[in-house]
Amino acid sequence: MIRFSSRMSELTGSEIGDLLKLTQQPDIISFAGGLPAPELFPVEAMKEAGNKMMEEMGSAALQYSTTEGYLPLREFIVNRMKDKNGIETFAENIIITSGSQQGLDFSGRVFLDEGDVVLLESPSYLGATNAFKCCQPKFVEVPTDDEGMIVEELEKILAKEKKVKMIYVIPDFQNPSGRTWSLERRKKFMEVINKYEIPTVEDNPYGELRFEGDSLPALKSMDEKGLVIFLGSFSKILVPGYRLGWVCASEEILSKYNAMAQAASLQATTVGQMHTMKFLELNNLDEHVDKIRAVYKKRRDLMLRTMKEEFPDEVSFTHPSGGLFTWVVLPEYINATVMAKECIEEKVAYVPGESFFPNGGNKNTFRMNYSCMPDDKIVEGVKRIAKVIRNNLK
Amino acid sequence: MIRFSSRMSELTGSEIGDLLKLTQQPDIISFAGGLPAPELFPVEAMKEAGNKMMEEMGSAALQYSTTEGYLPLREFIVNRMKDKNGIETFAENIIITSGSQQGLDFSGRVFLDEGDVVLLESPSYLGATNAFKCCQPKFVEVPTDDEGMIVEELEKILAKEKKVKMIYVIPDFQNPSGRTWSLERRKKFMEVINKYEIPTVEDNPYGELRFEGDSLPALKSMDEKGLVIFLGSFSKILVPGYRLGWVCASEEILSKYNAMAQAASLQATTVGQMHTMKFLELNNLDEHVDKIRAVYKKRRDLMLRTMKEEFPDEVSFTHPSGGLFTWVVLPEYINATVMAKECIEEKVAYVPGESFFPNGGNKNTFRMNYSCMPDDKIVEGVKRIAKVIRNNLK
Repeated sequence: MIRFSSRMSELTGSEIGDLLKLTQQPDIISFAGGLPAPELFPVEAMKEAGNKMMEEMGSAALQYSTTEGYLPLREFIVNRMKDKNGIETFAENIIITSGSQQGLDFSGRVFLDEGDVVLLESPSYLGATNAFKCCQPKFVEVPTDDEGMIVEELEKILAKEKKVKMIYVIPDFQNPSGRTWSLERRKKFMEVINKYEIPTVEDNPYGELRFEGDSLPALKSMDEKGLVIFLGSFSKILVPGYRLGWVCASEEILSKYNAMAQAASLQATTVGQMHTMKFLELNNLDEHVDKIRAVYKKRRDLMLRTMKEEFPDEVSFTHPSGGLFTWVVLPEYINATVMAKECIEEKVAYVPGESFFPNGGNKNTFRMNYSCMPDDKIVEGVKRIAKVIRNNLK
Repeated sequence: MIRFSSRMSELTGSEIGDLLKLTQQPDIISFAGGLPAPELFPVEAMKEAGNKMMEEMGSAALQYSTTEGYLPLREFIVNRMKDKNGIETFAENIIITSGSQQGLDFSGRVFLDEGDVVLLESPSYLGATNAFKCCQPKFVEVPTDDEGMIVEELEKILAKEKKVKMIYVIPDFQNPSGRTWSLERRKKFMEVINKYEIPTVEDNPYGELRFEGDSLPALKSMDEKGLVIFLGSFSKILVPGYRLGWVCASEEILSKYNAMAQAASLQATTVGQMHTMKFLELNNLDEHVDKIRAVYKKRRDLMLRTMKEEFPDEVSFTHPSGGLFTWVVLPEYINATVMAKECIEEKVAYVPGESFFPNGGNKNTFRMNYSCMPDDKIVEGVKRIAKVIRNNLK
């Protein structure tokens, strides 16, 4: 009998995984994924950029390259983070990863031994907890409200728990809740982590997808002690198909991520980095992101409006000002995991909320994605879910 | 003070790492890397394939895709492994990874808990031991000879060590030794692992680069109990720039690799997989590999001939019948790590052998790569090393 490592018992395919497979049937209206809208991908411009890049770079594009990544791309990222997130940094503080998911995996492995404590928002991103589980930590969920992580609760936990090695947060258009931390909350949070000196992973894949209001500075922009590790991604602002993300951190921390990257996969795709950079040289990314924001805003408006019209009054949901998701809270007696199966019979899907709580519970919640379904399907899908909810009301 | 995980203390930049950085100076003749020759990359054909692929696939090429990988590419791999390695398998038994290095990382994480024992050839591939170190195992080196791993020694260890969770081997043109296991040795090895039922990772990045003699069947082709995990790669037979490798294993084992892949980086690049597949549809990979083999054979011949002429009689080296490397053994009193610094002063580089022994020692050895230097530099570089060796003779 083959003996696997103990971490594998924490990574077994879950009920949720089986459910998500069902949502891939073509006739299902799925609000379950988190895919960007493919009709917005700049296919022609990417093709052109690919050609130009191959002409200019030749065999260098097809060869191994450095672990830290393609310098012009890292310089582009430095400028972009300054412009969009208020972060002052240097190319030396950035490595390119094979998607942000790899940044999450490295974060767990750089900081967490078995039994160490990782703090995160309650709820938090499923893919992050899944990555961290490989290191077998203890998850402590910090309560949140509409302004973000509740800092008083965080401080209570930090005063008590001695093995906190890392905090993981998504301050902008959080996955799954759609919420964004207020400026006040960001400042208070930084005060606390500066006091306790706990490394904090700030995951920011959606920050540029703001529909209204002003951008807020990243935690990383207020980081005076080099405690914040910022994760960025091209997946939601350009395309996910190359799997390109980045990590921005202090030199000391980044050197650990670099060592981990060498062990894990040597480097991100050379071709992909050069191709992406050539696209960025030849095109205006701001204009492209504007297009995405306009479409997602329209879809958010439509989904929220339809939910307001169709969902019973007992159901509440968040009003995200950007990003890809809204978060629905049902009456406590309705189990959204059970209800998901009834929805799939009606050919509509969402992700049950309990999978976003590493310690379980909260079965009366679910996550809805609005970025990748056309208008008519948004309306029809929400109506179907509303019908199933009504059937479950007491 | 930031506290990192305990595994990070095993991954710190080594003396070897610092040395390898020095070898990147442009005026150095480097036999230290393991890069494929970039002048053999099919740049024009890749460019054409990229265009056709983008025309046909459009936005699907730029979107997320499945963790297991692009089905046509997995089917190509099934046929290729049958043809080249005698392996009968199915697309369901394959996942695409972000380079073979990721397959190594997953292997460690799927099987190894802290303190578990991993067995490997002595010497073995530095990048593999580095990947496994993340799991903090105990490395036990199994003695080897010109026929491969000495199976009697392996059996002695297995009879004694109860915590052996994995064996790692490179039977074809081993890195770093250049040696290839005989058929007899392969059969004996499989008898032993079948008896003890130990999962075995068979790393095969170089198998197709044979210069003479007949191909030998992969261990995986003799695997009746589903114990062998075969790792393949496009890096040495096509290009490394997309970071595409694969894992072939039994369903039970592969499901663990799949769970690990989801946590680690979700999937390998969609564009890269489709681009590579389009190249494979439009071109004859056998013809391309023939070109590579012809060039590397010529370079091996030249390097070995020059070494024979220039190196003192006290120095021995292997005669690889394929692959990228030859392995040099100096008189015991010469420290190849110290001598490497003298060589760098003479503007020539190799990798000191001790880094290929996870438990250290064997300081009188080094690895030479012949795949990516032109003829004149091979001759000149070997002459310079020979001079430094002569200066070190007693």
